[in-house]
Amino acid sequence: MAARLSRRAFLSAAGAPLLAGPLLSRAGLASTPPPPRDAGARAVDYRRVRLADPFWAPRQRTNRSITVPHLFGQLRENGYVSNFERAAARQQGGYRGPVYMDSDVYKTIEAASYCLGSAPDPAIGAQVDEWIGRLRAAQRPDGYIDTCYQVNGRARFTNLRDDHELYCAGHLLEAAVAHNASTGRSDLLEMARRYADLLEATFGDGPGRRPGYCGHPEIELGLVRLSRLTANPKYLALARSFVEHRGEKFFAAEHGTPLSAYDGTYWLDDVAIRDHTVISGHAVRALYLYSAAVDLAAETADASLVAAVERVWKNATDRRMFVTGGLGSSEHNEGFTDDYDLPTFKAYQETCASIALVFLGHRLNRLTGDARYADLVEWTLYNAVAAGVSLSGDRFFYVNPLASTGSHHRKPWYDTACCPPNVSRLVATVGGYAYATGERDVFVNLYLAGSADVELPKGRVQVEVDSAYPWGGSVTLAIRETTAGDFALRLREPGWCGGPMSVRVNGETPPTLRREKGYVVISRAWRAGDRVELDLPMSIRRLQGHPLIEETSGRVALSRGPIVYCVEQADVGAPLATVRLPGTAPLRAERSDRLAGATLLRGEASAVAVPSGGRLYGEATGAPATTGASITAVPYCVWDNGEAGPMRVWLAVG
Amino acid sequence: MAARLSRRAFLSAAGAPLLAGPLLSRAGLASTPPPPRDAGARAVDYRRVRLADPFWAPRQRTNRSITVPHLFGQLRENGYVSNFERAAARQQGGYRGPVYMDSDVYKTIEAASYCLGSAPDPAIGAQVDEWIGRLRAAQRPDGYIDTCYQVNGRARFTNLRDDHELYCAGHLLEAAVAHNASTGRSDLLEMARRYADLLEATFGDGPGRRPGYCGHPEIELGLVRLSRLTANPKYLALARSFVEHRGEKFFAAEHGTPLSAYDGTYWLDDVAIRDHTVISGHAVRALYLYSAAVDLAAETADASLVAAVERVWKNATDRRMFVTGGLGSSEHNEGFTDDYDLPTFKAYQETCASIALVFLGHRLNRLTGDARYADLVEWTLYNAVAAGVSLSGDRFFYVNPLASTGSHHRKPWYDTACCPPNVSRLVATVGGYAYATGERDVFVNLYLAGSADVELPKGRVQVEVDSAYPWGGSVTLAIRETTAGDFALRLREPGWCGGPMSVRVNGETPPTLRREKGYVVISRAWRAGDRVELDLPMSIRRLQGHPLIEETSGRVALSRGPIVYCVEQADVGAPLATVRLPGTAPLRAERSDRLAGATLLRGEASAVAVPSGGRLYGEATGAPATTGASITAVPYCVWDNGEAGPMRVWLAVG
Repeated sequence: MAARLSRRAFLSAAGAPLLAGPLLSRAGLASTPPPPRDAGARAVDYRRVRLADPFWAPRQRTNRSITVPHLFGQLRENGYVSNFERAAARQQGGYRGPVYMDSDVYKTIEAASYCLGSAPDPAIGAQVDEWIGRLRAAQRPDGYIDTCYQVNGRARFTNLRDDHELYCAGHLLEAAVAHNASTGRSDLLEMARRYADLLEATFGDGPGRRPGYCGHPEIELGLVRLSRLTANPKYLALARSFVEHRGEKFFAAEHGTPLSAYDGTYWLDDVAIRDHTVISGHAVRALYLYSAAVDLAAETADASLVAAVERVWKNATDRRMFVTGGLGSSEHNEGFTDDYDLPTFKAYQETCASIALVFLGHRLNRLTGDARYADLVEWTLYNAVAAGVSLSGDRFFYVNPLASTGSHHRKPWYDTACCPPNVSRLVATVGGYAYATGERDVFVNLYLAGSADVELPKGRVQVEVDSAYPWGGSVTLAIRETTAGDFALRLREPGWCGGPMSVRVNGETPPTLRREKGYVVISRAWRAGDRVELDLPMSIRRLQGHPLIEETSGRVALSRGPIVYCVEQADVGAPLATVRLPGTAPLRAERSDRLAGATLLRGEASAVAVPSGGRLYGEATGAPATTGASITAVPYCVWDNGEAGPMRVWLAVG
Repeated sequence: MAARLSRRAFLSAAGAPLLAGPLLSRAGLASTPPPPRDAGARAVDYRRVRLADPFWAPRQRTNRSITVPHLFGQLRENGYVSNFERAAARQQGGYRGPVYMDSDVYKTIEAASYCLGSAPDPAIGAQVDEWIGRLRAAQRPDGYIDTCYQVNGRARFTNLRDDHELYCAGHLLEAAVAHNASTGRSDLLEMARRYADLLEATFGDGPGRRPGYCGHPEIELGLVRLSRLTANPKYLALARSFVEHRGEKFFAAEHGTPLSAYDGTYWLDDVAIRDHTVISGHAVRALYLYSAAVDLAAETADASLVAAVERVWKNATDRRMFVTGGLGSSEHNEGFTDDYDLPTFKAYQETCASIALVFLGHRLNRLTGDARYADLVEWTLYNAVAAGVSLSGDRFFYVNPLASTGSHHRKPWYDTACCPPNVSRLVATVGGYAYATGERDVFVNLYLAGSADVELPKGRVQVEVDSAYPWGGSVTLAIRETTAGDFALRLREPGWCGGPMSVRVNGETPPTLRREKGYVVISRAWRAGDRVELDLPMSIRRLQGHPLIEETSGRVALSRGPIVYCVEQADVGAPLATVRLPGTAPLRAERSDRLAGATLLRGEASAVAVPSGGRLYGEATGAPATTGASITAVPYCVWDNGEAGPMRVWLAVG
């Protein structure tokens, strides 16, 4: 089994690359829109990308040595083992935690499997094996597994809206695909397949099938990956059925809610997916659903599906995104509210939503070959996602505000622990977001020092990258070996550059450079020893928000390269609330030995004087008295790694 | 019964005035601090104050003609009748709504009783009688009544932390005291007394009594009022026991929470009341508790209790109060967070918390004779409290943000409907906050056009006030009749004046004026026909927040007299988020026929240009392009009475 699947498994492990041809024909679709603009790009698997950069390489090491063992430890400490053991023993009662606990186990196994895919690790391997044993013992003969339902003796699939059974199943499928791809083993995959077969026989279109879909999309992503790995279109068909039916207000029927009183927005169950115009509802649910929709569109060449997702993406990024590349304005629904409602202290920006945005942007980039999607993938990775885990690897943010009075800190675990294993599986595979290939193209989306083995239809290319990126903007990309002949190197020109990046090929500036969809395109017969030198301008930028964003008015955020900065109380000698950044004060970038060698920004600001015993409100006195205050800004992604305290991304100008 | 109680009832109806002598001796108190600074002021009952002012008089008419009938209608529509009928019929099951529903009935009866106290109203009287019938039918023979517990068949007093039984009882007691005072009838009072007797035999100190107190203070206030009305010290003793024991972490024991894991802050059960230093926990709970503590301190001459409340008051008003005079920064706990954490969009500022702050300030003013407490009573009444009900009288705010994107509106009712009847009972009795008397003093705390009958130990004084207050600052106070001889008129000099108010007596400016604790004191042998003319400077003020308040930085709020203003989207031709108020732009005040004749503020501002298709974030460009924009500011208390839309109290300066 392992041998037969190995190539497909390889292709599917990091971010589910597209197959050359669709597994599912479009026959039977109600409408027949024109085919999508499919760039046909295929991600280069994370295992083909060796990182030696100053940002992700140490994080990946920590992920393997600290985070994954920490996750397994937390599973043990928080009742997960007992849930599976009770399910295996058919014990009733004593289930611990919220309904979706199983998914944390699956995501941890998935993250661990990615580590095993990069390099052997007996300790992690043993933990995975132990868990697979528990899972197999708990699985029912017909393939069903959901410890919450089993231990509580509930009737299966009776509350799809709230109870996350299919969501958990989706994570089981993803874990199994990852485990098979990394280890070549089929035990977990067989388990997952049996459950997927049960689901396929239970749900979807056709006589005798149950209607409905899961309140939290995820099963669709798992089914697509399983379908690709096994080359079995029935899983894809089920994923498609779930996506296509969504919006039929199934949850109103399931819960006896009168349609007149039903608002399915939170569950993305208000309108059919092709009719979506703005991003709304629960952020992670929305982004997982759209990611699945792009997977399906890629398989079915369904342009109307892509058009809907692109419409929503545009709304999200034009009007509803935080400066750090994350989404989700409100704690209330863990999701979206109104255009330009982008608070700072109350920014929700769940780590999982940022991860999901990376999933979606990655898919859209591959589908369209447009660098603007990869721009945001990079921005979100370096800022909103990287903030999700401490430098020590064992503390996590679930919520990521852009300002804090000092009480917000990373925690070792959460009752709802979706984020810790999610960030772990992404860090493990971040190299998979760097390169993609087309028929005759090598896309370079992330500039990560290290090397990569890239496979084109006509041959292989070994690329080596030397750079201090993201702390420095000089990037040298050398072709070490190639058997691929002519091909186009598509080098992403980051949107944050604000202008053209300089490009030299073998020491010469090409007389003309083709620029296409955000890429500098260099087509030639590449040879071993060829060198491309890029210089990405890394000035310190003051970013301002759109005038309709209330909370950024009169404020700026600092960025340099792909990194958004913030100021922590410990780095400034006045109360953070009083700090004012002069509009033209010079700021300088300095490499530091703090915070894993991050480049920090330093400069002179001022601070409004705080009167002793001052009244809470008083007559405005014009320009307030100020004193000088030196400030140091640190990358947002590493805040709360030092002295815990107040923090601000948006600094008052004055 | 009615005749015997009439004088005490009169004294007790509006805000529970202090008795001349303590009902409870201090014997038995653990510590013996010096006696408090007791001004011994007694509120002049609301029924002795006839309003003819442009602000409260129409609101009081609407309260009687619209609000109170609306409240009774909502009780009927929302299952309250059925709860009581089921309890009366001893039916099990079918209880509707949250546990504290009974209290809404009691507060509605209390508000209705106050209306009956001012003038007869057969329709309201009939509704009250109908409800008293229901209550009597539901009450158990031993005095117990709590329809939630009765209909659900729960064991009494088994979850004091969460289930509000004693809270509901407190509101029954308050309703009963009000009903007796207003109508002279004793039926509801007898009911309440029976329940109070049961509580008194069940809780408090002594052998065989249950330990504990209610998760939501209120019973203490009801017991004090009942004690004063009936001259029975046992109710006061029980109130004192509840207050004194609070902080003993009873709820940890009740719920089996290990002390190491127990945080009683929310319920004010973390430390003993005398050890409170900052205001924390749930806002309404905190303020009801402190109000009860001041009642007890007044009875027991307990200075340490007063010192604790004054300490907390100082923290609240110096560091945790909104510019509109309300409290409670966070939805999370409906209460307090950190010093200077005063958000705008997310200001919680529950209407009930503002009402409770009025209760507390009123008590502290009477106890200390210090006008700074009355200053805040006025400010909170005209802003945070008045906003709680629509001009139409049938829509209510529960939460009162200082900025809205446009989705926040008053509603006819809430599942947790504490605020609507609470604001109604306060509007009905607002005249009771205007005057107070000492041995030889008449305190004037609110400048309300109309007349008042004030009783001093030596005789009666009839006062007539002519003024357009709060829209105009000229106030003429005439002595119509007096038999009181020499006494001091203590005229509050509002803190918002920012400077001395001008005072003339019988057309002459007194050569010297004694000023004491925020009052201008004029002592003389007053005669009928004497006139005092005040001129309170009513310039338009730009208020700024303390530098440590994040969300007011770079912004001003407008006020004039005691009124805080806001700007609604409908009154400005540019998106509200883009409006900038120049620091020195002239503003003018204009009486209007809109919004019940409010004085509006008008002026020229500017608006940041909104680029079409503008990016969400871009490089800061220095001073943004602006266009002129006329603005009209309306009193905060009447926002959301016209075209529904976005609103801002704090306006960006620029």
